[in-house]
Amino acid sequence: MLELTAREIAIIVGGEVIGQDSLAINGVATLGKAEQNHLSFLSNDKYRSAVISSSARIVLVPLDFSEIPQDNRAWIKCSDSSASFSLITARFAPPPRIPPSGRHPSAVISETAKIHPTAHIGANATIEADVTIGENSIVEAGCFIGYETTAGAGCRFYPNVTIRERTRIGNNVIIHSGTVIGSDGFGYIPDPKGHRKIPQVGNVQIDDDVEIGANVTVDRARFDRTWIKNGVKIDNLVQVAHNVVIGENTFIVSQAGVSGSVEIGKGVILAGQVGISGHVTIGDGATIMGKAGVAKDVGPGETLMGIPAVARSQFWRQTAYIQKLPELAKKIKTLEKEIQALKDQLAGP
Amino acid sequence: MLELTAREIAIIVGGEVIGQDSLAINGVATLGKAEQNHLSFLSNDKYRSAVISSSARIVLVPLDFSEIPQDNRAWIKCSDSSASFSLITARFAPPPRIPPSGRHPSAVISETAKIHPTAHIGANATIEADVTIGENSIVEAGCFIGYETTAGAGCRFYPNVTIRERTRIGNNVIIHSGTVIGSDGFGYIPDPKGHRKIPQVGNVQIDDDVEIGANVTVDRARFDRTWIKNGVKIDNLVQVAHNVVIGENTFIVSQAGVSGSVEIGKGVILAGQVGISGHVTIGDGATIMGKAGVAKDVGPGETLMGIPAVARSQFWRQTAYIQKLPELAKKIKTLEKEIQALKDQLAGP
Amino acid sequence: MLELTAREIAIIVGGEVIGQDSLAINGVATLGKAEQNHLSFLSNDKYRSAVISSSARIVLVPLDFSEIPQDNRAWIKCSDSSASFSLITARFAPPPRIPPSGRHPSAVISETAKIHPTAHIGANATIEADVTIGENSIVEAGCFIGYETTAGAGCRFYPNVTIRERTRIGNNVIIHSGTVIGSDGFGYIPDPKGHRKIPQVGNVQIDDDVEIGANVTVDRARFDRTWIKNGVKIDNLVQVAHNVVIGENTFIVSQAGVSGSVEIGKGVILAGQVGISGHVTIGDGATIMGKAGVAKDVGPGETLMGIPAVARSQFWRQTAYIQKLPELAKKIKTLEKEIQALKDQLAGP
Repeated sequence: MLELTAREIAIIVGGEVIGQDSLAINGVATLGKAEQNHLSFLSNDKYRSAVISSSARIVLVPLDFSEIPQDNRAWIKCSDSSASFSLITARFAPPPRIPPSGRHPSAVISETAKIHPTAHIGANATIEADVTIGENSIVEAGCFIGYETTAGAGCRFYPNVTIRERTRIGNNVIIHSGTVIGSDGFGYIPDPKGHRKIPQVGNVQIDDDVEIGANVTVDRARFDRTWIKNGVKIDNLVQVAHNVVIGENTFIVSQAGVSGSVEIGKGVILAGQVGISGHVTIGDGATIMGKAGVAKDVGPGETLMGIPAVARSQFWRQTAYIQKLPELAKKIKTLEKEIQALKDQLAGP
Repeated sequence: MLELTAREIAIIVGGEVIGQDSLAINGVATLGKAEQNHLSFLSNDKYRSAVISSSARIVLVPLDFSEIPQDNRAWIKCSDSSASFSLITARFAPPPRIPPSGRHPSAVISETAKIHPTAHIGANATIEADVTIGENSIVEAGCFIGYETTAGAGCRFYPNVTIRERTRIGNNVIIHSGTVIGSDGFGYIPDPKGHRKIPQVGNVQIDDDVEIGANVTVDRARFDRTWIKNGVKIDNLVQVAHNVVIGENTFIVSQAGVSGSVEIGKGVILAGQVGISGHVTIGDGATIMGKAGVAKDVGPGETLMGIPAVARSQFWRQTAYIQKLPELAKKIKTLEKEIQALKDQLAGP
Repeated sequence: MLELTAREIAIIVGGEVIGQDSLAINGVATLGKAEQNHLSFLSNDKYRSAVISSSARIVLVPLDFSEIPQDNRAWIKCSDSSASFSLITARFAPPPRIPPSGRHPSAVISETAKIHPTAHIGANATIEADVTIGENSIVEAGCFIGYETTAGAGCRFYPNVTIRERTRIGNNVIIHSGTVIGSDGFGYIPDPKGHRKIPQVGNVQIDDDVEIGANVTVDRARFDRTWIKNGVKIDNLVQVAHNVVIGENTFIVSQAGVSGSVEIGKGVILAGQVGISGHVTIGDGATIMGKAGVAKDVGPGETLMGIPAVARSQFWRQTAYIQKLPELAKKIKTLEKEIQALKDQLAGP
């Protein structure tokens, strides 16, 4: 069984041992669940006191952590305790099995598809005509890649991903299972006999280093493209409608929904279950807090909450006043009585 | 490269040229992104001034658009500029590749399934016993069609759709990738040892001209049927629970959820992320605005907002008052002081 | 055609006939839709008066139902009319077709997978190396089971389920179509060049008697496990993030989302579209009402509503006051005028 000493861990993470170099662990756990033979870590200030009460023999702590460990424990100070913990965790995890280069014989691959020889195409996958898959990219079992789609190098599409025709995908793009890229946008024209479908003849472009979670939907554009730029990270069950543009390094958390033609800047955060109405612009660096509903343009760097969304400070002030409403109503009643009393007094006997 | 003149475009869309007939374009774009060689269109009043500032040489405009184009530009007045734009856009889009009639050899199709010879069954699809697929219907790669399901003519099921047993599907029904039709309703009976599952022995019926987006879930009925009527359009990631009935030509926008046994009328709009509680009735023509939560019956034609949902006008009035709460609280404080002053004055020296 | 008399129904459900034993039905329906030849049932007090107005010849009613049926109708009193109705409904439903033991020849199954001979592996399924599938378990068409995953006895995975590597699944677990188990958690470390992915090297553990709906996502743990305990029931389109722990017999209704490292107790109910922020603890027996947003720990047995969530009674009080705000504002205006009048009066002529 793998064992690592405090000294070895400090070398791996580039940290400093506080306590004995020779103390050792053979596993990892959170502060609350750790046993004596475990390494743990402090990254959220909320858990600062849990470092002392934890059974973990060794704990990765931030540089400003000043408590002294007991004799039988050690800290390792490091500049990013969470990232350092991941480095050690990887040592204890079973090694991932990387799918080999080549095509599984059960995959159905068009003769006109260009699959790089180092790429992997999994069992029961379907690759249509004129698809291009780049170097070292992995298309797992059950994936569907529609005609004329291109994917660059180092991509990974987990099992049962659906990518419709003419999608453009850059390098190092990760797409998780169940996700659908390039489904038709939701658009209709009123018609005497119900509604006519507006053809959705654009496509989806996904740039480099994007990661998209499981069971996400990204609609193709009505025309032109739906565009997800470099470094965007999208969590599970998110909706991205047609013609949306998402700027570099933006984060979209689970179950958020972005309506058609919305333009989102760089470095934006949309938290869980947020909704953005159609044709809205969100400025660079803005943060939309969980469950907020945004129907108007948002300026760069703004932080909004609520439905309809307002500045975070305003939201909390509003919320505080709402919680004081019974008290305000009581005060009004008291004032009414007092005024009546004053009137009576002035009317005099 | 295809080029179209103003005159040619006017003929295609049945519109009138304002400006020179001979001006030509070779592509399409939105007003904001268009270059000189592009056609664009105005459909949202919000962008009216963008027609003049746009570089688009030709713009499709509504009949009441009265600005005069410069010499090197032209408008085409038409009754529905958005629909007209789609007509021209289709000319510039690469032609769609329609899957051919017949069964891909990798598809697993029960001998008792009745597949019309003009229908297409894609690679790695699975068709169970006693399924019927009608004329010109397309079942794409990786789809699953459960036993005794029937689908009419002209349907299209995009890749990786799952349709469980005994579903009834009409004509011209479109279902997008990742969607699940006929999963079990969510129902349990409390039991000393946890909860017993209530068998979900009904099915799902989907009538003609329905379109259902990607990664939607439509549960089968506990008994009888979950019923989606003619012309209903459902966007991505929507939940339709067991025994729900959705009336003709109703729209359900992305991430909305409809609980069990809800009855929705005709021509209703449920906007994005709306939630409807169980056993509620929504009258014909009602509109539920984005993110609203509805727990009571809604009358025909009503427009509701908020959680809990109230009439739209009431919602905005409430919201305005909530935003004025700090000011109201201040006024109360002022009144208290003034009354104290009056009392002091009356108490006299 | 199957016909059942009141007496026969009473024997099946262990109930008591009120009215004539010999009256018979040959189908089932809700009170509102029933015709004369139908059995119906009353379980929701809201529909009590509908028993009398219904055409259903026989109605299953609760023990305290005291109305007397007309001559040509009968009630059957039973302790759980809804469960009793399901028993009879099953008699009229077409029998389910249970997939046979064995492996479909089109399934791609690793030589190192251990599939119990009584288990079913459907068409176009993919089973990776070192997977174990227990007695009588059913893995339907198009499912993907990643390496080293184990599933116990009596499980059913509906078509197109994706279960990633190293998942641990107990006995009698049902997972519906389109659901993804074991996708990577959403975690990144800020980096000068965008964000680095935090490896998600933990797994998912699902204990006995769990049911998970369609198009659900359950992320694997960053390390350790995401853990769904015995008897948990999860509806469609729910998000369960990495390292979440869900206690025994908890219910999570459609479109709810649970953020990373949340710990949910036993017997909890999260209603539809609820959102729980990261690292929160929800006590045993708590109920979170539909659409609520929870960002703080919740005590055992609490019932919360709203965004941010507060006690249910407080929520309704707040809501009532919000709806009275226009009236309160008016009162304040009146008070201001009256005080001005008093001041004027005191200032004297």
